[in-house]
Amino acid sequence: MKSLERVNETIEHESEALWKSLSSLGRRAFYPPDIPFQAAQARSKTYNGTIGQITDGAGNAVPLPSLAAGLAGLSDAERNKALLYSPVEGIPQLRQAWRRWQQGKLDDPPPTTLPQVTSGITNSLALLADLFAEEGRTVVVPYPYWDNYRKTFELRRGARLVEAPAYEGDGYRVGSVGEALADLPAGEPALVILNFPSNPGGYSLTRSERQKVREHLIEVAEKRPLVVITDDAYAGLVYEDDVPRESFFWNLVGAHPNLVPVKADGVTKELSFFGGRVGFITFGFADDSEIAAALSNKITCLARATIGSPVATSQMLALHALESDSFAAEVNGIRSLLAGRYRVLKDALSKVDPDLLTPLPFNSGCFATARLPEGVDAEEVRVHLLDNYDTGLVSVDPLHVRIAHCSATAEALPEMVKRLEQGVGDLVGRRAARV
Amino acid sequence: MKSLERVNETIEHESEALWKSLSSLGRRAFYPPDIPFQAAQARSKTYNGTIGQITDGAGNAVPLPSLAAGLAGLSDAERNKALLYSPVEGIPQLRQAWRRWQQGKLDDPPPTTLPQVTSGITNSLALLADLFAEEGRTVVVPYPYWDNYRKTFELRRGARLVEAPAYEGDGYRVGSVGEALADLPAGEPALVILNFPSNPGGYSLTRSERQKVREHLIEVAEKRPLVVITDDAYAGLVYEDDVPRESFFWNLVGAHPNLVPVKADGVTKELSFFGGRVGFITFGFADDSEIAAALSNKITCLARATIGSPVATSQMLALHALESDSFAAEVNGIRSLLAGRYRVLKDALSKVDPDLLTPLPFNSGCFATARLPEGVDAEEVRVHLLDNYDTGLVSVDPLHVRIAHCSATAEALPEMVKRLEQGVGDLVGRRAARV
Repeated sequence: MKSLERVNETIEHESEALWKSLSSLGRRAFYPPDIPFQAAQARSKTYNGTIGQITDGAGNAVPLPSLAAGLAGLSDAERNKALLYSPVEGIPQLRQAWRRWQQGKLDDPPPTTLPQVTSGITNSLALLADLFAEEGRTVVVPYPYWDNYRKTFELRRGARLVEAPAYEGDGYRVGSVGEALADLPAGEPALVILNFPSNPGGYSLTRSERQKVREHLIEVAEKRPLVVITDDAYAGLVYEDDVPRESFFWNLVGAHPNLVPVKADGVTKELSFFGGRVGFITFGFADDSEIAAALSNKITCLARATIGSPVATSQMLALHALESDSFAAEVNGIRSLLAGRYRVLKDALSKVDPDLLTPLPFNSGCFATARLPEGVDAEEVRVHLLDNYDTGLVSVDPLHVRIAHCSATAEALPEMVKRLEQGVGDLVGRRAARV
Repeated sequence: MKSLERVNETIEHESEALWKSLSSLGRRAFYPPDIPFQAAQARSKTYNGTIGQITDGAGNAVPLPSLAAGLAGLSDAERNKALLYSPVEGIPQLRQAWRRWQQGKLDDPPPTTLPQVTSGITNSLALLADLFAEEGRTVVVPYPYWDNYRKTFELRRGARLVEAPAYEGDGYRVGSVGEALADLPAGEPALVILNFPSNPGGYSLTRSERQKVREHLIEVAEKRPLVVITDDAYAGLVYEDDVPRESFFWNLVGAHPNLVPVKADGVTKELSFFGGRVGFITFGFADDSEIAAALSNKITCLARATIGSPVATSQMLALHALESDSFAAEVNGIRSLLAGRYRVLKDALSKVDPDLLTPLPFNSGCFATARLPEGVDAEEVRVHLLDNYDTGLVSVDPLHVRIAHCSATAEALPEMVKRLEQGVGDLVGRRAARV
């Protein structure tokens, strides 16, 4: 793409909703033919003096032996790529392999862009915030939600976060996005962040809820351009038959011209590679389309301005795993481990005194969240458990405590729940004594 | 630090110049006691359900075997850390080891903050742009400069880039920062980005120039708060006796109350670890000071909002190398390789026809830059070399062509210069024919 005008015209022509949803930074962003572009053009030349990385003169890394030694398990070719710059868009083989993995067992996946690599899922969200969020832009987040959204969308970009209650009874509150947007004038663009399995909820839409939420979002999109970011950080960590492994993103692609689904995912959880920082951004447009190139141009500009290029080392380690014959079985092994913990936690929480703890619905992911009784503060509970019960949990907000089963043994979980229950009981008792 | 007010008061009290230089985002940034903080408090507890990463229940990673296999050269303990989340501030051992390495052979290094880890040097610059740059803020960049500064400071943050000619005769134009700021009202804060060894220049201040530029910057700081970001991407790649290995940053710490030096560096070039994406930010304040904690709080907030946490895998690989007995010798090995190429390029450029090419002064780093004769466009030269001379070079701007010696063999460099000279000659000839 040769000019900003061309990039912007393409987007406006191919998806008016997306164009209307771009932030002013998003509209300005353009990746001109600069050094990486010039280096790409020079790649096949005998005399190549374009690239600012140290090589042997034939494109191979010249690493410190003591550093390269750490990567002893990679082949020479893999290690070479792990030590040199990644393309800003990511290493092509990983992008292809990741798309196959995203699609899972879908029979007939709709067309999507080749996933663009980022520096982890938070970085995917931050790049999307640059592209779509700005002063006053409304961003709907089901409540309770991961507090970092506030830093990424509100603190940095000035967007207006609007909470939409996530649950109703034993399941999801299907119509909450529309409720949250009721006061926003028709035509005004909005963003929604949907996170399944959720943090802190540990909740995923069931198959039948997916259908209903999809219909609801289409209804909302009748009124305005609606960018739906699926934060699939915990994708794949599902333990119940009525929850599909594949992302809700796939149900949204092509659903309505005004509905712009964007997938933010990464290797962090499902590949259990927390330290790796490899994320992706995927749009619901065909890989070889003009708009795919235009969006990639903008994301590349923003990535280049903030992280330069994504980490090649972790990309190659992830690719090495994805290409292994045992990969799917290994991923299943970790999921089974978590499923076992999940069931133990589910059982323990099902038996708590409802006057002390109200577990929110959960069926997936790494967490469960419990609501506290009126008048008991979550931060107070957290500190009380640290001080008196040798137990650490997370206070999500004043009303909710989060239990992470992903980092505790199955054996420890019932005791953790018991101590939480006792701790809350102490504080309820104290409060009663004061009244 | 318990509140935004406390963080801001600390900064204002300890360095009024730094406080006045903060952007409005920088002033808002605050990292509250949230999940990583809560997880840190829970670390020693028997029952720990705080952390959203998959572990065995005792804090150890549960990796995919095929992924961990790639890191076969690390010890079990190192690999464990490589696979789990890094603290947002970076892995403590690496931060300590990096500080020792930064200080090099300085006899009596001034106090500095413990380097905070980022996702590469571009990310260090982007975080500093968030902290200090905003709509209308003046950022002085010696010209010619790395074009990415424009994306990071101008496109993203709305700052106003002002070019300051870098060279004069055979050396550095010592007074150019003050010239560039001559029209800015006194008292108005400004930023300067100093990049030695430079990209595209391949230039470092000599020992005597350092003294003069230091005095000049002190003079400029008499008039206004002046944040001086030393972009030390190419630190250590020096080949001449009159250029110190240690950063110019060290000369600026404590030089004047209005002068705020900040060091942006990383493992990319000197450790030849381009794919790793490990950068650092270091301020000239004592590690255990209140203002060090306040600045770290703000950087941590901004990092958490954009990259979550920095890549642990590359940090552990870099640490593994830094702790190796042969580390210094290995780094010297790569520097010697580049020094050899540098000398060959220096020699070849010293012999070119001055009517065709004017090499800018260079003494370090990965590049040399040559100025073209009037009327010959660098992009035209670049494409002509690609099409007709099997040679790829970089057009920095319409006037300058950059040669990277770091990615070419010493044998190839004289031929590359010859082809560049011939290519320019062709275009000069064409121009003459047209006139």
